[in-house]
Amino acid sequence: MTQNSRLHARLHEPQLDRRLLLQGAAASVLIFRPGAAFAQSGDYEAIRSAAQAGKEASIKRIQDWIARPTIAAENRDIELGCNYMMGLAKEAGFQHVERIPTDGAPGVFATLDVGAPRWMGVYFMYDVKQYDPSEWSSPPLEGRLVDKPGFGKVIVGRGAVNQKGPEATFLAALHAIRAAGKKPPVNLALVCEGEEEIGSPHFRQIVQHPHVLPALKKCLGIIIPAGWQNPNGSVQINLGAKGIIEVQLISSGERWGRGPTHDIHSSQKAHVDSPAWRLVEALQTLVSPDGNTPAIEGWFENVRPLTAREKELIAQTAAPTSEAEAKAAFGVKHWINDEPWETSLERLVSQPTVNIEGLVSGYTGPGGKTILPARAEAKLDFRLVPNMTAEEALSKLKAHLKKKGFGDIEAIMSGGYDPTSTPENSRVIRAQQAVYDRAGVVNTLFPRSPGSWPGCVFTSAPLSLPAGQFGLGHGSGAHAPDEYYVIDSTNPKVAGLIDATMGYVDYLYEVATIS
Amino acid sequence: MTQNSRLHARLHEPQLDRRLLLQGAAASVLIFRPGAAFAQSGDYEAIRSAAQAGKEASIKRIQDWIARPTIAAENRDIELGCNYMMGLAKEAGFQHVERIPTDGAPGVFATLDVGAPRWMGVYFMYDVKQYDPSEWSSPPLEGRLVDKPGFGKVIVGRGAVNQKGPEATFLAALHAIRAAGKKPPVNLALVCEGEEEIGSPHFRQIVQHPHVLPALKKCLGIIIPAGWQNPNGSVQINLGAKGIIEVQLISSGERWGRGPTHDIHSSQKAHVDSPAWRLVEALQTLVSPDGNTPAIEGWFENVRPLTAREKELIAQTAAPTSEAEAKAAFGVKHWINDEPWETSLERLVSQPTVNIEGLVSGYTGPGGKTILPARAEAKLDFRLVPNMTAEEALSKLKAHLKKKGFGDIEAIMSGGYDPTSTPENSRVIRAQQAVYDRAGVVNTLFPRSPGSWPGCVFTSAPLSLPAGQFGLGHGSGAHAPDEYYVIDSTNPKVAGLIDATMGYVDYLYEVATIS
Repeated sequence: MTQNSRLHARLHEPQLDRRLLLQGAAASVLIFRPGAAFAQSGDYEAIRSAAQAGKEASIKRIQDWIARPTIAAENRDIELGCNYMMGLAKEAGFQHVERIPTDGAPGVFATLDVGAPRWMGVYFMYDVKQYDPSEWSSPPLEGRLVDKPGFGKVIVGRGAVNQKGPEATFLAALHAIRAAGKKPPVNLALVCEGEEEIGSPHFRQIVQHPHVLPALKKCLGIIIPAGWQNPNGSVQINLGAKGIIEVQLISSGERWGRGPTHDIHSSQKAHVDSPAWRLVEALQTLVSPDGNTPAIEGWFENVRPLTAREKELIAQTAAPTSEAEAKAAFGVKHWINDEPWETSLERLVSQPTVNIEGLVSGYTGPGGKTILPARAEAKLDFRLVPNMTAEEALSKLKAHLKKKGFGDIEAIMSGGYDPTSTPENSRVIRAQQAVYDRAGVVNTLFPRSPGSWPGCVFTSAPLSLPAGQFGLGHGSGAHAPDEYYVIDSTNPKVAGLIDATMGYVDYLYEVATIS
Repeated sequence: MTQNSRLHARLHEPQLDRRLLLQGAAASVLIFRPGAAFAQSGDYEAIRSAAQAGKEASIKRIQDWIARPTIAAENRDIELGCNYMMGLAKEAGFQHVERIPTDGAPGVFATLDVGAPRWMGVYFMYDVKQYDPSEWSSPPLEGRLVDKPGFGKVIVGRGAVNQKGPEATFLAALHAIRAAGKKPPVNLALVCEGEEEIGSPHFRQIVQHPHVLPALKKCLGIIIPAGWQNPNGSVQINLGAKGIIEVQLISSGERWGRGPTHDIHSSQKAHVDSPAWRLVEALQTLVSPDGNTPAIEGWFENVRPLTAREKELIAQTAAPTSEAEAKAAFGVKHWINDEPWETSLERLVSQPTVNIEGLVSGYTGPGGKTILPARAEAKLDFRLVPNMTAEEALSKLKAHLKKKGFGDIEAIMSGGYDPTSTPENSRVIRAQQAVYDRAGVVNTLFPRSPGSWPGCVFTSAPLSLPAGQFGLGHGSGAHAPDEYYVIDSTNPKVAGLIDATMGYVDYLYEVATIS
């Protein structure tokens, strides 16, 4: 899921408190304080002891899951991943666990009904991003435990933070509750997909399945477990996310009816048209000459400007955040148009984008090779802001290409969804604030993640539920080499595995009782 | 070498004579007739018998060479290839064989001085193009003998026709002359390089070496052995070739000072500049909107229009050639601007080009991946016509980018050379016509190959020698999978290995005596 938001979290990377780090506590010194409901339940000590007793099993659960990657982009181990997800749900105590077929990778639906008055929804992804082992310092499927300076003992592996680590920590909370002889304070509806990393093309089919939709309708909201504490312990609560469409634009001699149908020798360019040049010409019509503003006809038609409250939240985030560290993290010297920090964050939140993820045509090895390629592809993503929709974006893109004379260029949408928004006064959000506050975790509201997640499936009709990310703990490197997730924290402001586990327990008690 | 010319040769692919094919002669029925000088020498029968006796050794020589690829683009087996080339020259009877160091791959220089009045120059390349074994029907280094319908027994392997097969056939001619107890009718100077496939960046160093230049100056001209008979037996004699520069254009956040210095999450596009978009914008300034005419400032300044004689030669080539078959070979439905065949050939000969060989940026696997790449590269080749030069082209390209505001985009020239021309009345050309005519091979003059070879190193100062390709025989698939070279021809109009060998012998006799 949205490494996007996580990457954005890095914007807020603070000065670590060096004095505290130098004290070098071997175990976390984050003092977790249960909420009133949880404290009054008398369950806290027993559950914490059970979480502690189950720690090795919890670590192994993350490692074993990391060892079994499902990669939708490569159509890799879809069924294996789905079955494994079903097993994880059963072991965590879900009484009903069901495979939900789709036109793509199957989903998993599970319920844990303890007869509580309230239902809470939980969203999992069981797939991970592609990886290149040669770029990793330990094998990406090993889940090796290594010491990471400034953080403590971490698990390194593909999916460690995105999203298996946090998801397995949520499952660890359910294991601990059961091991302590208790029941969750709310009923749970779990909905899982295996195609998040390719844009959740069939997730709506899962959510609207006749077994799933009625259960979700009973929920007060949905969370996906996350481990996005910044190194200074702070957390950003996103009140939504941009939408996205991912589109591969393909120019080919075959479809164009000009140029070659197979790669030919480049000497023929003198009298043969080039599909690669055609792609370049089509691409440059999509944006302003600086590459920064979409130039597709009607693109801004439904774009809603920032509200006063959204601007206020951005200003509140910008003020305490180090712009220099954000720039360093991205290797960026200047924001677009050399804008100042706060303006640049407003742009980040409010602007739709046309981004080139990749270009591929002809010869791509070292040096050159004298061919005239028959095919050229641009991999694009288009981030969408309220009130744009994915459907609108794809149809405007296609209309634009046609109008500009590039109707033969194929536009294959590999995934995408609408923007999503959740009100800041919803229980899903307020319960997060309560838990974070009690744990001493500085939390700020942010209008919207510049990244994307399929939350719109929950926040739009027919469900229209609040939805967001929640979790203590920390990890980084989603989609990148050496992805990790903190197990034993030596950073006094960041939760390790046990405190993050207790965070989920506390959150469930909070949503069970919050007014 | 110039598969370019070979590909062009495919333009002339004819209807095979089905009746003759149906007669299905197992061996070639091409009747090779020696020239007057050769016939008078009394050497013909003995040399042909020796060539026949050495056939198995000649086949093995091609296969063993194919098994040892030198690939300059991958810096693969350069020294091995150079040493092997030296061994081949020694075994063929060259008395002096010398390694010529350069700033890149070493060259080989060899002489066979029999005290004849005339010297002839021969150019070899010992490197081959990259290959992907998964695309081949037999292992590319095996040199497997297979039956190819319409052609007979062929060797399949990387380098089979480009250029090891024809070069080894030339060596077979020297072996046959020696085995027959004879001496070549001319002295030979052999000059070899191992970087032809990357644009011969150091070939001038080899030719201008103090041991090499004086020997080449004694030569009446230079040939590279080739196997470019069309399936109908005809041969096109190119009176030169276009020049080329191969340039990789690289846009990066590092050099630009904007955008990221490493790939970052694509959600950041909203406030971070994109090196990939910058490359697209720079590229589209290089050509007209249809991608067909260079738009670089001053590009046509030194372009010499076609002469009346060149137009005449093009018309002579166009008339008997099947446009439909040329289009089929390239998978092309329309030439540029829907021009008719002869106009399109004039364009092929006369126009400089800017071609995209490849595009590579960010994520290039299946589907998409939400990143904003820090780097984007376009692999371009620019074909040059008289009187453009490679140096002029590179400097105009760089000046253009700078003037358009893209001075940060790196332009790395990986190889290239000037156009080359050889007069049609030179002995190198007239001797070819004489040999082809006697062998019943229809031969046409063509003003210039649309492809490129480093002939300019010979045809320009200080050597200023005629230079060209020569050879009977046939092969195809240079730079492509299943490259092949005919050994036993079942096509009555195409020479097999023995006739091609005798063609080189006859050519040497011809240049020894031609007025």
